[in-house]
Amino acid sequence: MLHRRLRLGMVGGGQGAFIGAVHRIAARLDDRFELVAGALSSDPQRAQASALEAGIERSYADWREMARAEAAREDGIDAVAIVTPNHLHAPVATAFLEAGIHVICDKPLAVSLAQGEALAKLARSRKRLFALTHTYSGYPLVRHARELVERGELGEIRVVQVEYAQDWLAEPIEASGANRQANWRTDPALAGPAGCLGDIGTHAYQLAAFVTGMMPRALSAELHTFVASRRIDDHVQAMLRYANGARGMLWASQVASGAENALRLRVYGTKAGLAFDQEQPNELWFTPLGGMAERLTRGRVKSAAAAHATRVPQGHPEGYLEAFAQLYKDAALQIGALNEGREPPPESRLLTTVDDGVDGLRFIEAVLASSAADGQWKEIAAGSGAGM
Amino acid sequence: MLHRRLRLGMVGGGQGAFIGAVHRIAARLDDRFELVAGALSSDPQRAQASALEAGIERSYADWREMARAEAAREDGIDAVAIVTPNHLHAPVATAFLEAGIHVICDKPLAVSLAQGEALAKLARSRKRLFALTHTYSGYPLVRHARELVERGELGEIRVVQVEYAQDWLAEPIEASGANRQANWRTDPALAGPAGCLGDIGTHAYQLAAFVTGMMPRALSAELHTFVASRRIDDHVQAMLRYANGARGMLWASQVASGAENALRLRVYGTKAGLAFDQEQPNELWFTPLGGMAERLTRGRVKSAAAAHATRVPQGHPEGYLEAFAQLYKDAALQIGALNEGREPPPESRLLTTVDDGVDGLRFIEAVLASSAADGQWKEIAAGSGAGM
Amino acid sequence: MLHRRLRLGMVGGGQGAFIGAVHRIAARLDDRFELVAGALSSDPQRAQASALEAGIERSYADWREMARAEAAREDGIDAVAIVTPNHLHAPVATAFLEAGIHVICDKPLAVSLAQGEALAKLARSRKRLFALTHTYSGYPLVRHARELVERGELGEIRVVQVEYAQDWLAEPIEASGANRQANWRTDPALAGPAGCLGDIGTHAYQLAAFVTGMMPRALSAELHTFVASRRIDDHVQAMLRYANGARGMLWASQVASGAENALRLRVYGTKAGLAFDQEQPNELWFTPLGGMAERLTRGRVKSAAAAHATRVPQGHPEGYLEAFAQLYKDAALQIGALNEGREPPPESRLLTTVDDGVDGLRFIEAVLASSAADGQWKEIAAGSGAGM
Amino acid sequence: MLHRRLRLGMVGGGQGAFIGAVHRIAARLDDRFELVAGALSSDPQRAQASALEAGIERSYADWREMARAEAAREDGIDAVAIVTPNHLHAPVATAFLEAGIHVICDKPLAVSLAQGEALAKLARSRKRLFALTHTYSGYPLVRHARELVERGELGEIRVVQVEYAQDWLAEPIEASGANRQANWRTDPALAGPAGCLGDIGTHAYQLAAFVTGMMPRALSAELHTFVASRRIDDHVQAMLRYANGARGMLWASQVASGAENALRLRVYGTKAGLAFDQEQPNELWFTPLGGMAERLTRGRVKSAAAAHATRVPQGHPEGYLEAFAQLYKDAALQIGALNEGREPPPESRLLTTVDDGVDGLRFIEAVLASSAADGQWKEIAAGSGAGM
Repeated sequence: MLHRRLRLGMVGGGQGAFIGAVHRIAARLDDRFELVAGALSSDPQRAQASALEAGIERSYADWREMARAEAAREDGIDAVAIVTPNHLHAPVATAFLEAGIHVICDKPLAVSLAQGEALAKLARSRKRLFALTHTYSGYPLVRHARELVERGELGEIRVVQVEYAQDWLAEPIEASGANRQANWRTDPALAGPAGCLGDIGTHAYQLAAFVTGMMPRALSAELHTFVASRRIDDHVQAMLRYANGARGMLWASQVASGAENALRLRVYGTKAGLAFDQEQPNELWFTPLGGMAERLTRGRVKSAAAAHATRVPQGHPEGYLEAFAQLYKDAALQIGALNEGREPPPESRLLTTVDDGVDGLRFIEAVLASSAADGQWKEIAAGSGAGM
Repeated sequence: MLHRRLRLGMVGGGQGAFIGAVHRIAARLDDRFELVAGALSSDPQRAQASALEAGIERSYADWREMARAEAAREDGIDAVAIVTPNHLHAPVATAFLEAGIHVICDKPLAVSLAQGEALAKLARSRKRLFALTHTYSGYPLVRHARELVERGELGEIRVVQVEYAQDWLAEPIEASGANRQANWRTDPALAGPAGCLGDIGTHAYQLAAFVTGMMPRALSAELHTFVASRRIDDHVQAMLRYANGARGMLWASQVASGAENALRLRVYGTKAGLAFDQEQPNELWFTPLGGMAERLTRGRVKSAAAAHATRVPQGHPEGYLEAFAQLYKDAALQIGALNEGREPPPESRLLTTVDDGVDGLRFIEAVLASSAADGQWKEIAAGSGAGM
Repeated sequence: MLHRRLRLGMVGGGQGAFIGAVHRIAARLDDRFELVAGALSSDPQRAQASALEAGIERSYADWREMARAEAAREDGIDAVAIVTPNHLHAPVATAFLEAGIHVICDKPLAVSLAQGEALAKLARSRKRLFALTHTYSGYPLVRHARELVERGELGEIRVVQVEYAQDWLAEPIEASGANRQANWRTDPALAGPAGCLGDIGTHAYQLAAFVTGMMPRALSAELHTFVASRRIDDHVQAMLRYANGARGMLWASQVASGAENALRLRVYGTKAGLAFDQEQPNELWFTPLGGMAERLTRGRVKSAAAAHATRVPQGHPEGYLEAFAQLYKDAALQIGALNEGREPPPESRLLTTVDDGVDGLRFIEAVLASSAADGQWKEIAAGSGAGM
Repeated sequence: MLHRRLRLGMVGGGQGAFIGAVHRIAARLDDRFELVAGALSSDPQRAQASALEAGIERSYADWREMARAEAAREDGIDAVAIVTPNHLHAPVATAFLEAGIHVICDKPLAVSLAQGEALAKLARSRKRLFALTHTYSGYPLVRHARELVERGELGEIRVVQVEYAQDWLAEPIEASGANRQANWRTDPALAGPAGCLGDIGTHAYQLAAFVTGMMPRALSAELHTFVASRRIDDHVQAMLRYANGARGMLWASQVASGAENALRLRVYGTKAGLAFDQEQPNELWFTPLGGMAERLTRGRVKSAAAAHATRVPQGHPEGYLEAFAQLYKDAALQIGALNEGREPPPESRLLTTVDDGVDGLRFIEAVLASSAADGQWKEIAAGSGAGM
C-alpha cells in the first residue's frame, strides 16, 4: 500500500513572511505531509493569493473557522502549523487542540508562562501532539552532541557557554515600518515582553538545555536596549547556575555588528569539551581533557540519533539537497517554457545540460588518451562553450 | 489558479540506491514536481516494493514499456529522472526523448563521447530538455563565483586549481560484492572506461568549467590504480592549458585517506583569487591581488544568480532546511503513533514539544525578573526535564 | 658607533621555571638587552647553576644584595626583569626601584591594590620605567585592533566579549606537589587571593581594555572553585558595564576540558565588529555591520602600530623566526660536535644540509628538462636519501 | 663554566635585505651564536654602516678577505652565514669551507647541480658543517609530521600534494628597479635559470621530501611565465612519480592573486592522511582512513622531534615569543629615553606599565567584592585610562 501523507494546515505564513515558507519546505522534504488547508493571512485577499501561490487547496479567511471546518471534514487536516507572530500562538493553538488537531508551532511557545502552561495542560488532556519547532535541535550533529553527553563522554558537566549574535537590529529599522519582520518582533504587543530574549535568547537557552539535558537552576541577568527608540530589549546577558554545580553564561544580541546568525554552544565536562556553531552545521568539535580537537562530521559520527536525522552520505554537507533541488527548480522552469513554447527564463540559464555532459566526455576522452600516451599533451576538441 | 506541479517519472533508484532518494527529495523541495511513475529496478519485485515505499502510483517493470505507456497517457509524465548506473544513461534517455519526454539525467552523461554527442543531437532535434545533474553548480555560492568571474572581478584568469578527494575506495571494498555502490562504480561494464575519472573527476572538471566559463584546450594526464585488484582507475592527475594562456591542475582520487568528499576549486586572475570548498558550501573566499581574504556568505552576497538559488536568510546555512524538516519528520512519526494509539517510536523522541516551550518561558520569566532586580540571582522553577 | 645593548638583570626564573626562559629569549630577540646578572633562585646552589646554564656572569644568592651591588657598579644593570611568584613582585620591585633600576615585571603587578598603587607611586617618584609584561598586547594584530578602535572604524563600542579558557587545572594536580607551576599558582600565600582570576582573568581584562581603550565602570561577578580540594578559584564569570553604556562579559576558566590557552576577544561597535584569538595570532577578523568578514593578516594590514611590532614579511607567520632559529640551534649542536670530534647529537639530525641542497638542484634540473621537452617525464637521479 | 656562544660571521644581508635580519634574529634567539664579523655588502660604505647597525664588531669590505682574516685569528668565527643572492652562494661557501669555517647557507644551495655537488664534496672532505636553511623544516609540527610518517602512522604513502603560492610577482614590479628583492630574484644572472622554481618551488619540493622521506623518481613539468616582460619563470606545475608507486603534484606560483606565502603539504597513505599549512604553523591535521580529522597542536603532540624544537608550552603559539620580545623592545626604547632625559618615542607608547597593573588590580578587587556579595554589581574605581 502506498504510504499515506499526513494532511497539514497552516495558520500565518502569507506572502512576505519568512518562516512560513520554511515550514512548507520542511513539511515537504521527507514526503510525510501534504499541505491542504490554510489561513495564511488575517487579510482575506492576501490569504487567498498566498494560498494559491503555495498550492493550497482550501483557503480560509479566519483560523477559528478553519479549526471548526477542518475538524468536521472526513478528510480534514491531521495537524496545523502555526507560524503567526508570537501573541497569536496561544489562541490559535488552543482552538486547534480543542478541535482535536495536532499542533506544530513556531517558537516561542507563548508570550507568558501562564499561557504556556495552559497549552501544555491542554495538549496533554486532549492527547494531541504539540511540537515546538526549535529548529537547531534538528541538526544531526546537535543530536549527536546530546548523545555524547548522555553517554557520559564529557564526564560531569562543569561549564556551559552559549551565545546567539545577530546584527540585523543594530539600527532602528523598525522606525520606517517597511520591514515586516522588524516591526512585529520589536512590538511588545505582538512579540510579548521579551524582544531579543524571546526571539533568539530562547533558542540559545533551548540549545544548551537540549544538548546538556540540564536546565539552569538560577540565573543573574541583564536586559539592555541599545537602539534608543526601541521599545523592547535587543541584548541579553546572563550568568547561570546548575543544580549539579555547573556554571554558565548566556549571551544574545541583535546589535552585534557583523554577526549573521551566530548561535554557538560550548560545553565542558570533567572528561572533555565540545563546541557547535550553527553556521557550520556540518562539524562538531570534541576535545578530551588535555587532548586535541577532533572534527566530528555528520557523515562519519556513529550514533543512532545522528543517523535518524541524516539523509545524505559523508562529505555531502547539509545543504547538498538544496543544491540538488536547485537543478530541479531550474529544470522545471525550462520544461515549463518548452511546453508552452516560451523562451526559458533567464534565471534558469545556469542549469547544466546535455551540452555540459558532452564537454565532460571530451575531457574524459582526452585524459584517457594522454594517460595512455604517458602524459603526452592532448588537445581537447572545442566544446559548446564551457558549461553555458 | 493553483500552480500545476510537473509530473515526474524515475528510472533506477530502487531500494539501497543513494542518488535516487536524493533526486526524489530534490524534486519535492521546491514543490515543482510530483513523482508519479517509476521503473525503479530491473528486478520487478524490487521495482514494485521500491515504488510503494517512495509513494509512486505507477510502477513499471521495464523502462522501455514505461516510456511507451507514459507517452500514451493524457496525464503521462512531463519528465523522467534517470538515476541508473552509467551504462544505461544513453539507452534510457534515448527511449524517453524519442517518446517526447524531457530528461533529467545523473552524471556522467554517457560512457563514450559518441554516445553523448548522439544524445545532445537527439535532444536538440526533439526540442526536449536534457538536464544533467551536476549538483555542485546548484550551490548559491558557486553561482555567485561564476558571476564574479563573468563580471570581471578576478580580471583575466591565470591559474585554475581543482581537486576532488575521497577515501571510500582506498581498500578493495568491491571484492566482497556487498557494497552496491562500489560494485558498479568499479566495474567497467557498468561505469564505462573511466573510474574515478568518470565518477568524480568529471565533477571537478565541470565545476572549474562552470565557474571560469572556460574549457581547457589541452591537457597532460595520468590515470593510476592504487588498489591492486581493481579493474579501473582510482586516481587521476592532470595538468591543463587554456586558450587564453591560463594554466591549471586537476586532481581526483578515491584513495585519499581521510578525505570525505573534498571537492575544492581555486581560481586566480590578474585582479583577485577565489576559493570554494563544497564541504563548506556556506562560504566563498575572495582575495584581491595584494589584499586580504573576504569570507563571502550566501546570505550577504549580492547577485541575481545567488538570489535565485537561495531559500533562507543570511546566517541560516545551507542545511537549515534539513534541520527544520527533521522536526516535521519526527512530528509525523509521533502523530502517526498517536493516531493509531501506539507508543511514539523512540527515534522520534528528540522532537521539541510544548514542554520545552514551557521550560523556555520559565527561563524568560527568570531573566525578566533578574534584570528588573539589577541582576539579582533568581531561581528557575523546576522544569519538565530539560528538553527530554 | 656600535649600538649599546642595555644591561639586564633577572630575579626568579631558575631551572624548572617557565616564564623566566621566555623573558630571556624575548630580551635577546631584538638585540637590545644583554643579560648580565641574576638572582634566579632563593636556593643559592640552584641560583648559581641556573645562572651558568643561562650564560649569566654575575649570580647573586639574594635579590636585596643584587639590587645594592648592581646599583653600586659602574657597569651595573640598567633594568631588572622580575619573574618570581606573584607575592614577591612588590618587594623585589620596590628594592630595585629604590636602587634606581628600571623594572620589567611579570603580571599580575601585585597581590593587592594597595601594593600596586604604592609601586606606581614609587616608580613615578623615582622616574624609573615600570613595564608590566602583558604579553598579548605585543602581538602586531592586537595593536592593529586597538588602532582600528582608535580610528573609529568600529564606531561607538557596544559589546565586549572576552574569555580565557585553559584545562590544565581541571584535576587537582597541585595535590602531589610535583608540578611547580600548579603549586604556587593555587597557593594563596604565593599567588594572592585571586587564582584563575589573577592568573588569566587579568590577562582577559587587560586585553579587552587595551583594544577598546575602556575600563568597565561596574561589574557583577562570580568566582567558583570546581576542584574540591583547591584553595583558590579556578573559574571566573562576570558581566560588565562601561561608562558609555556598552555591555560586556568576561569568562576565565582553568577547568575547561580541551582548552589549551584560549584567550579570545570580540568587540562590537555601531559600525563593525572584530575578533582575535591568541592561538591564531596571525589573523584578525573585521566585519562591518551587515557585511562580510575580512581576514586581516599581520603582513598586509596598514598601521604604524602593527608595523612597529613586525619583523617578517607577509605570509611569514608569527613563529617563522622560531622555525628559523631551530635551524641555527641544530647547526650549533652539530658545529659543537664537529669541533670536538664528537658524533652530532641525534636530536640535531633534522638539520637540512648541503645534501638536501643537492637533491633540490636535482629536482630543479629535472623540472627544467621536462618543461623544455613539453612535459615529457624525466627521471631524477637517485639522491642522498630525501632530506635525511 | 659559562656556556660559550659560537662566533658567527655573515656575508650579505646589508641594509634593505630581508633574509639577513631573519638570520641574525634566528642566530640570537637560542643564545648559541654571537655575531662578530661580517661582509654585509659589496659596497664598502654600506657594508660598514650595516655592520654598525647590526652591532657587528669586525666589518669587512670583501668576503674573500674576511675568510682569510677570520681563519687566521685566534678568536675567528666558527661559522659563516651566507645570505647573498643565489649566484654567490657557491663561491662564498667555497672560500669559507677552504678556510676551514663551517657554513650556514640560505637556499637554494647553488645555481646549478654541478656547483652544488662540488660544494657537497668539499664540505665532506673538509669535515665542515654545511647547513642549508630550509626554514620550514624547523617548525615543530613539520618535524612531528615527519615522525608520524617514519613511525608508519600513515601506512604506505600513496599521494603527495604540495604547493607554494604567492602573489607578489603578479605584476612586473621588477621593471622599475625599486624593489631589490624582485630585481635579483627575476634576474637569471643573479638568481640562476630557475625563477619561481628556484625561489619557492624548491621549498615545496624540500618540504614534501622532508616529511615523506622520499624523493620523486620521475616528473613531468611545465614552467610558465605569466608576466610578459619577465625573463624567468613565475609559475611551475609538475606531476610526480615515486619509487614506491606513489603519485604526486607540485605547484608553485608567484602570480596567484591573494596568496601571501601559502606553502601547503598534504600526504595520504594507506592508513591516514595529514595536512600542514605554513601560514598556520600551530596546527597539523591528521585524519585516519574513514575517520575524522584531528587537529594536532604543537604543545600537545608527543614526539621527541617536536619537543626538541619547542620553546613555549601548549596554547602559546609560535609567535608568542615575538609578542613577548615586543614588550622588551618597547621597554628598551623607553629606558633609553629615560636614561637620556628624552621623551619616550611615540611608537613605544603601547608598552604596558605599572598603571595597567593598577587597573588590573582594581578589576580583581571588584570581582572579589562582587563575588563575595553574590554577584551584586560593584563599581570599579576610575582608572588611569585603560591601558593608555
